[in-house]
Amino acid sequence: MKLTPEQLKQFDEEGYLFFPNYFSPEETQILKSEIPGVFQQRREENVREKSGDVVRTAFAVHTYDPIFEALVHHPRFVEPAEQLLGDRTYIHQFKINGKAAFDGDVWQWHQDYGTWKADDDMPEARAMNLAVFVDDVNEFNGPLWFIPKSHKKGAIEAKHDLTTTSYPLWVIDNDTIAKLVKQGGIVSPKGGPGSAIFFHGTLVHGSPPNMSPWNRQIIYVTYNAVSNAIRRFKRPDYIAHRDFTPIDAWSDDAVLQAARRKSAAE
Amino acid sequence: MKLTPEQLKQFDEEGYLFFPNYFSPEETQILKSEIPGVFQQRREENVREKSGDVVRTAFAVHTYDPIFEALVHHPRFVEPAEQLLGDRTYIHQFKINGKAAFDGDVWQWHQDYGTWKADDDMPEARAMNLAVFVDDVNEFNGPLWFIPKSHKKGAIEAKHDLTTTSYPLWVIDNDTIAKLVKQGGIVSPKGGPGSAIFFHGTLVHGSPPNMSPWNRQIIYVTYNAVSNAIRRFKRPDYIAHRDFTPIDAWSDDAVLQAARRKSAAE
Repeated sequence: MKLTPEQLKQFDEEGYLFFPNYFSPEETQILKSEIPGVFQQRREENVREKSGDVVRTAFAVHTYDPIFEALVHHPRFVEPAEQLLGDRTYIHQFKINGKAAFDGDVWQWHQDYGTWKADDDMPEARAMNLAVFVDDVNEFNGPLWFIPKSHKKGAIEAKHDLTTTSYPLWVIDNDTIAKLVKQGGIVSPKGGPGSAIFFHGTLVHGSPPNMSPWNRQIIYVTYNAVSNAIRRFKRPDYIAHRDFTPIDAWSDDAVLQAARRKSAAE
Repeated sequence: MKLTPEQLKQFDEEGYLFFPNYFSPEETQILKSEIPGVFQQRREENVREKSGDVVRTAFAVHTYDPIFEALVHHPRFVEPAEQLLGDRTYIHQFKINGKAAFDGDVWQWHQDYGTWKADDDMPEARAMNLAVFVDDVNEFNGPLWFIPKSHKKGAIEAKHDLTTTSYPLWVIDNDTIAKLVKQGGIVSPKGGPGSAIFFHGTLVHGSPPNMSPWNRQIIYVTYNAVSNAIRRFKRPDYIAHRDFTPIDAWSDDAVLQAARRKSAAE
């Protein structure tokens, strides 16, 4: 899996790439059916919503679940990440965002690199998310909103918001958002399960709450250039990993193989 | 202005009618430019958002502002209201919902008749909203969401929610919403300023918060059949009116005339 020159240009200009049906229905179904078993676990990696007992984010699942371990080694993630970041990569963060029907709360406007820099002392914005939709993402269930071209601004000043949701986030003020939107607008890629989105570490994004009866689970893998490893270990290891070993690409059927091994073991 | 038999049928089946560009740009601009003067007033009719000093809802503006008085007498509101409700009508409620950029909070899933019944002892669901978009309404600035056909269920059991927002509302539980959405889906009419939406008093609706930099002001006029006047006066008069005088239709240029009178007086 190699990105074309046109795709590289679009990523450079707009800050993201969207691929409907990037993973097969079979692969996506394997990922989806693995999640309930993850969410039901009482472990510190599972951050719950303010409103109650619903999982907002499950971190570091690839460290204990072979299905998600296979996903982070998927060549359709590893190879584009290396291409876009110009280096071999390691996993800085892995998360499944639940955005549960009715309960899924807002993600305020932010840059991911804002947090990686402020909390983890990541030298440069040479890390990024490669994400896969587990559910259909539509206008009603809290889709991601991006401000195209905003990644060109580098690291934007942000304020640590500890109160709005259950998860602390470095958020960007309204005046800055208004200016960025004037330049780039807002886009909200929607699509079926298996669609993928890659976005720059400084691309400003957020998402509204989920008031619909439909879950909106998305898996995010943050790849960081190995030459850009973090230098502060303030946050727990399961949120900002300290294992900088380069990630190898496995075979294209890595997720299917992991599922087969799992059923064989059961 | 008369609704066609097809429109009456659609309203009966779906519970709403949407009209892009229902009012002229000139009329809409008059309404829009009148709102800042309303919102800046410190009066009890102006309910502010929980988050701060931004107006969430301005009630009863037609009782003190001639521009909005003209709007409630507009034949493009009065005549369809009489047709749909099968009676002459009076104004049960008038409001401008600000849904301000960044600050506009959620409206939870509800039926308007739930409140009119529980709080105002309105005998039947023979009241409805005729609303006009003052701003462009898009997927990002907190558009209205409707569950088509849900009006057929009559008054649905609801719970008085006094905490979620600054405005108390009789809201419907998640299980019921999930069932209704399975039957009718969710629709979200979007359009430019001047677009109008008419919806049944028992049509279930809500709207997400406005995280965008764009205001989303909508004016709602609630017409009630004169034979269906409320019987309890628990809520303030400016929220649930007690003047049951039938509303006459003025001429089609009523808003333009009111604006001309206003400039002449200035």
